[in-house]
Amino acid sequence: MTHLTAAHDAVDRHDRHDRHDPYGRDGRDGRDGRDGRNGRDEREKEAPPARVEFRVAPERYRHWRLSVQGPVATLTMDVAEQGGIVPGYELKLNSYDLGVDIELHDAIQRLRFEHPEVRVVVLTSGKDKVFCAGANIKMLAASAHEWKVNFCKFTNETRIAMEDATAHSGQIYLAALNGTASGGGYELALACEHIMLIDDRSSAVSLPELPLLGVLPATGGLTRVTDKRRVRRDLADYLATRAEGIGGQRAVDWRLVDEVVPRPVFGQVVRERALALAAASPRADLAASQGGIELTPLAKDRGADEISYRWVTARLDRAAGTAELTVRGPDTAAPADIAGLHALGAEFWPLAMTRELDDLILDLRTNEPELGTWVLRTAGDPDRVLGYDELLLENRADWLANEIVHYCKRTLKRLDVTSRSLIALIEPGSCFAGSLLEFALAADRSFMLSGVAAGGAGDDGRPEEPVPAVIVVGAANLGALPMGNGLSRLASRFYGDESGLAAAVGAAGRPLDAAQAARLGLVTFAPDDIDWDDEVRLALEERSSFSPDALTGLEANYRFAGPETMETKIFGRLTAWQNWIFNRPNASGPAGALRRYGTGQRAEFDRKRV
Amino acid sequence: MTHLTAAHDAVDRHDRHDRHDPYGRDGRDGRDGRDGRNGRDEREKEAPPARVEFRVAPERYRHWRLSVQGPVATLTMDVAEQGGIVPGYELKLNSYDLGVDIELHDAIQRLRFEHPEVRVVVLTSGKDKVFCAGANIKMLAASAHEWKVNFCKFTNETRIAMEDATAHSGQIYLAALNGTASGGGYELALACEHIMLIDDRSSAVSLPELPLLGVLPATGGLTRVTDKRRVRRDLADYLATRAEGIGGQRAVDWRLVDEVVPRPVFGQVVRERALALAAASPRADLAASQGGIELTPLAKDRGADEISYRWVTARLDRAAGTAELTVRGPDTAAPADIAGLHALGAEFWPLAMTRELDDLILDLRTNEPELGTWVLRTAGDPDRVLGYDELLLENRADWLANEIVHYCKRTLKRLDVTSRSLIALIEPGSCFAGSLLEFALAADRSFMLSGVAAGGAGDDGRPEEPVPAVIVVGAANLGALPMGNGLSRLASRFYGDESGLAAAVGAAGRPLDAAQAARLGLVTFAPDDIDWDDEVRLALEERSSFSPDALTGLEANYRFAGPETMETKIFGRLTAWQNWIFNRPNASGPAGALRRYGTGQRAEFDRKRV
Repeated sequence: MTHLTAAHDAVDRHDRHDRHDPYGRDGRDGRDGRDGRNGRDEREKEAPPARVEFRVAPERYRHWRLSVQGPVATLTMDVAEQGGIVPGYELKLNSYDLGVDIELHDAIQRLRFEHPEVRVVVLTSGKDKVFCAGANIKMLAASAHEWKVNFCKFTNETRIAMEDATAHSGQIYLAALNGTASGGGYELALACEHIMLIDDRSSAVSLPELPLLGVLPATGGLTRVTDKRRVRRDLADYLATRAEGIGGQRAVDWRLVDEVVPRPVFGQVVRERALALAAASPRADLAASQGGIELTPLAKDRGADEISYRWVTARLDRAAGTAELTVRGPDTAAPADIAGLHALGAEFWPLAMTRELDDLILDLRTNEPELGTWVLRTAGDPDRVLGYDELLLENRADWLANEIVHYCKRTLKRLDVTSRSLIALIEPGSCFAGSLLEFALAADRSFMLSGVAAGGAGDDGRPEEPVPAVIVVGAANLGALPMGNGLSRLASRFYGDESGLAAAVGAAGRPLDAAQAARLGLVTFAPDDIDWDDEVRLALEERSSFSPDALTGLEANYRFAGPETMETKIFGRLTAWQNWIFNRPNASGPAGALRRYGTGQRAEFDRKRV
Repeated sequence: MTHLTAAHDAVDRHDRHDRHDPYGRDGRDGRDGRDGRNGRDEREKEAPPARVEFRVAPERYRHWRLSVQGPVATLTMDVAEQGGIVPGYELKLNSYDLGVDIELHDAIQRLRFEHPEVRVVVLTSGKDKVFCAGANIKMLAASAHEWKVNFCKFTNETRIAMEDATAHSGQIYLAALNGTASGGGYELALACEHIMLIDDRSSAVSLPELPLLGVLPATGGLTRVTDKRRVRRDLADYLATRAEGIGGQRAVDWRLVDEVVPRPVFGQVVRERALALAAASPRADLAASQGGIELTPLAKDRGADEISYRWVTARLDRAAGTAELTVRGPDTAAPADIAGLHALGAEFWPLAMTRELDDLILDLRTNEPELGTWVLRTAGDPDRVLGYDELLLENRADWLANEIVHYCKRTLKRLDVTSRSLIALIEPGSCFAGSLLEFALAADRSFMLSGVAAGGAGDDGRPEEPVPAVIVVGAANLGALPMGNGLSRLASRFYGDESGLAAAVGAAGRPLDAAQAARLGLVTFAPDDIDWDDEVRLALEERSSFSPDALTGLEANYRFAGPETMETKIFGRLTAWQNWIFNRPNASGPAGALRRYGTGQRAEFDRKRV
């Protein structure tokens, strides 16, 4: 039995198509255009999409084993060959698909919340002689373009989450490569702080995507090799063309791994290194007696047109191509102190809300690719949100407060790299304050209602006192929740405009009405109630009418002004090239390298350089 | 009569295909894959490609007028509607194609060498009410993928050349928008230092690519709007969705332009601004009496399998898919002083060689897309090259020496963004020293022969004294010729490896043999003469066997380690997204926005977000 209910419709359709398409016999079958063809295929609409579910827990893992011994956790990858998230391929040699990575993501997350005593995470393989063969090739070859891209995005986020745990929680990842790590397998190791490779005259690290599949390493490999591990680019070039990879001392000399260790002593040296890293971890001063909090099962109601959780709801409007997300603020004031936070655990509003939002983002991204615009709304009491923010930020030295802030940061970063248009609507009753203001700052465009809406009556029938919409810049907007470029969303917004930034920061703490917010450049437009409905409707309709691809490119360019980091390079540059390559017949066409792999036939390339 | 001999084969073929393809009647005609289909079409091989020629001179311009009055040059764009570089479209409304940009590129170049007295270049339009409508849409819609991408690369380089002239020659570009500047027209203005827009209640600046064509502004617009002009990203988002653009005071308020000027006084105010900028130019101290040097016609012999100039030769091996470039060092010592340099003018070796190389790069890129690997060789006396370098670098205060160094820099930067594998071969008799060492540092991989080649006899029949290959790090490698990322190629190579960089810099001035060069990390491999032939041959054969698309992506990622600049963002990020979008059916498919534009039919989009 699998914890994953689902086969993704696109992959499933694709698979059927391969078997039955009468055009599937030669190189002119028109399949190149299928992944992104114009017009609709009626069959597609008939088959209701099965859904991918991201909620999982260790007792249901099929591909990983998580064990914790004092400060050292061991994550053992032991992929179930028959456990693919969709039918049609076997996950041989510890190759992975989305389902495998969903479990890894869950494990990384739980280690931070449920096992604060852990200071080192050893990543190793349960297979003999192979660490991990990377993303499953048959899966990639059979997948629709949008599935491949979404899969790569999630795996990239998961690798970055490992580095985030190393950097910000003192949970240091150690790659114990007890066999060959190829492609995505080596990229998994590259996300670790320390890489140990077994020296057995055959094990190696490799990036064989280019020579074998005609694509790039898609999980940050190219960027991490040069920018993180400082491998010289001509050596990195050689590595990326050598399918069999590089092992032994040469792998150390080229900085591809940190050390090679003979097989007989491999396990022992790994333990030594793990304990040494644990001793050096900044988390070492955490009282070992302090227990973690349980990430309790997330309650979720998933209908065809609505996804609802306790604090977060999404209404799916398929005709309009929109998802309307609403995040509700807390219904009580923040606990008085950090002990109150610990007592609430997973029920603590910022954590509960973030978990829901995180799951929703992943669900919508994967299962609802045709909902191209996300409308972001909030509701609630701004002061309460600011109270929760304050409790968290004043207690950053507390491990749990720290984890919650970083989790909120990671979830907002997911929004930044989501290939959907984000439109924030700020209306009376909304709650864009502090950490929740980040949604408006993450949006491609925001609308704030100027003045009060017409009409409206309270529950008791008497006319309500009209309350205009306000936003509040809070401490959480000033650097605690940075984007992938290392800047706060506020600093990114005012990049290069020091006085604009100073004015916005100077307004912190005060409720700002629409006119003030617009003057400070904190919202895009501030229509009054006469124009509001039309202006918002037109903006949404217009957005839905544009080319989805062009919007994805536009947003990917605009969302990260200013400086670049390894992370923005991975999502902005490497991903864009990979998407292009994925979409080219030389990779994904019927005679392309990805499709021909394993058939015994050589790929046929259009030799023109572009 | 046109100075451009040529219709590009791909475009020409494409056009024929449109008219005659029997499949061209519905949305399932398989044309999506045509731009990059697998396998070959026999018809393609029959038609010998006509060639694009980049050599031009002002007296043969068809689309631009260049006039110089004291310190102010005026470049007037007045595109000949019937002057397209290939048949099939009219260049209405000052829209441009590659031919128009080739002339612009030439004018920018000549202003720097032939008109050192110029301190301001006013870019304006010879048409009434329109500045420039951007790249011609019919041309884009009818072009093969590789043509579009190569066209965008060249236009991007030309825009960057305008900024380079502003920054490094004190030739400040001023955009005098006497009518609407849309798309590439506005991007042309964005490359200027100061943008003036006529205020006539109708003229505007716009980036209508996304709403009208389903693609992105492809000439740096998205990056310059945010990173150069500091336009807030939500406003930039709005601009890029509003086909009619933004004019008047709002354009100033949003920082899209620097000023709007009423029509009656537009010409006068432009003159005032031009003179004020001229007075502020760092070039103002240049003695006005000092004349420029003439960029004399470039002698070039272009055969089917060889392109030769005085100092540069390329052998084209179509079967192997390689071009073997050889750059010869100077045959005399450098002039004793700067006066000698001025006296030689365009005959001065570094300038003559660079002009030839520049033309060759552009020729091969545009006309030979199937030659995917460029083998880089040099020949000559390393000491002489170092002597020329020294003369130039010691006289950077001299305007001409400065221009030559910057031109060498720009030409090497072209190499960095060329979508071809670059393999440097360093053999006995080669001349990889100082500025010529940059070719080896620009290469994706370099091979240096260790020891001396077997055999060999001098011209007089007596055995020659065996001389091993050497390379020399020179002053020119230490920062005078930076890459687009702002770092020297040496610093990029050792990015993050301070001791490696210091060792390489410490070896400057000494001839280094293969063992020393390899130890210092200056070359990739150093085989001896027993292995040389096989190792080089295998590397070249292997390179030619890989997916050209994957290689392009690999190289684009590896060539720029470390920091990012507006320039690397344009070539690395924006270009990659645009290439992806260009290649998607939503843009270029039969029902895509680019193909449907102007037909009266709406584009049909696959709504899935990727």
